[in-house]
Amino acid sequence: MFVTVEGVEGAGKSALMKLLVRELERRGISFVRTREPGGCGLGMSLRPLLLDVSSSLDSRAELFLFLADRAQHVADTIRPALSRGDWVLCDRYADSTIAYQGYGRGMDVDWLQTINDYATGGLWPDRTLLLDLPVENGLQRALIRNGREGLSRSEGRFEAEERAFHQRIRDGFLERAARWPERFRVLNAEHAPEVLLGEALSALDLPL
Amino acid sequence: MFVTVEGVEGAGKSALMKLLVRELERRGISFVRTREPGGCGLGMSLRPLLLDVSSSLDSRAELFLFLADRAQHVADTIRPALSRGDWVLCDRYADSTIAYQGYGRGMDVDWLQTINDYATGGLWPDRTLLLDLPVENGLQRALIRNGREGLSRSEGRFEAEERAFHQRIRDGFLERAARWPERFRVLNAEHAPEVLLGEALSALDLPL
Repeated sequence: MFVTVEGVEGAGKSALMKLLVRELERRGISFVRTREPGGCGLGMSLRPLLLDVSSSLDSRAELFLFLADRAQHVADTIRPALSRGDWVLCDRYADSTIAYQGYGRGMDVDWLQTINDYATGGLWPDRTLLLDLPVENGLQRALIRNGREGLSRSEGRFEAEERAFHQRIRDGFLERAARWPERFRVLNAEHAPEVLLGEALSALDLPL
Repeated sequence: MFVTVEGVEGAGKSALMKLLVRELERRGISFVRTREPGGCGLGMSLRPLLLDVSSSLDSRAELFLFLADRAQHVADTIRPALSRGDWVLCDRYADSTIAYQGYGRGMDVDWLQTINDYATGGLWPDRTLLLDLPVENGLQRALIRNGREGLSRSEGRFEAEERAFHQRIRDGFLERAARWPERFRVLNAEHAPEVLLGEALSALDLPL
């Protein structure tokens, strides 16, 4: 089973991944835990380029780097694991690119769907856990975690833009979830971790 | 004027570039000389990944790295130079990707055209000088230049495959030249350098 965990910044993806990993281990399910970008050797060399906020990457160049990472990740890690019969638990995947670059930054969503389809050779997750929460709360959580004051320092227009950007991303994720209800499960990221874990397990058809 | 120089390995692109550069300088034409991959900062960090023959890059990942380099190169180098009114002289561009990955390795040519159109924002050269020569001769030249014996050492099937691969690339370039006769000028790469230079200048509407 190919499972991805998606959501906006501060939604608690890592915390849920950690709990899920423990549960899969406890149940003796063989799995690979991975992430994008950076889940394969190529991604490791690209990750600094992609996450360097100071770089002036052209938006298309950035998209292609994400896709290069994804294509290699699918070929080297995800497909081999699925062929072995392992589960794959992946932190972010194509839905993130479409939500951030498409809904967030205004790139053409249909084109992003097409090109991600190509990059993955048509491999989409069996199940996507979407951790959803109001944008304000997510940003607040991300700020606390990162220990930076970027957003609270910047007043007015920037802050409003930042909020609108994350709102578009949240809406984009939800729109995708509504379009593929078989694949997506929307989880309320504000639930307590143990409640969330139960919901996630049930979404993965793993009885508690 | 945006000029690209294309051709198979050993066609003599670098030698012609050098002569052209001297002529543009002599005529006081302001220009930028560049190349792909590696014509911009991003490309410089990607070039080793792309040219490392020992790496096991997934073919789609490789394509996306070329496209990332191209998108950034267009944004950082080519468009700004053209906006300043400079000439751009570029060693390889999208036609190479389509000839090598498409005709050579069998990726879908129409898809490669579409995706290169996207990567470049629709920027195609005003003129493309295609250095054409029989595959045998090009491979021979490349071998001599690289001082390696790869091909002469490997007998039989591999050699035949290698030849067939380069033949498809040559045919692909020629097919593109026939499709866009306004843009392409096919030059006989076996002509003496000074003759070739004259033909190239005439192809660029620069009187001798």
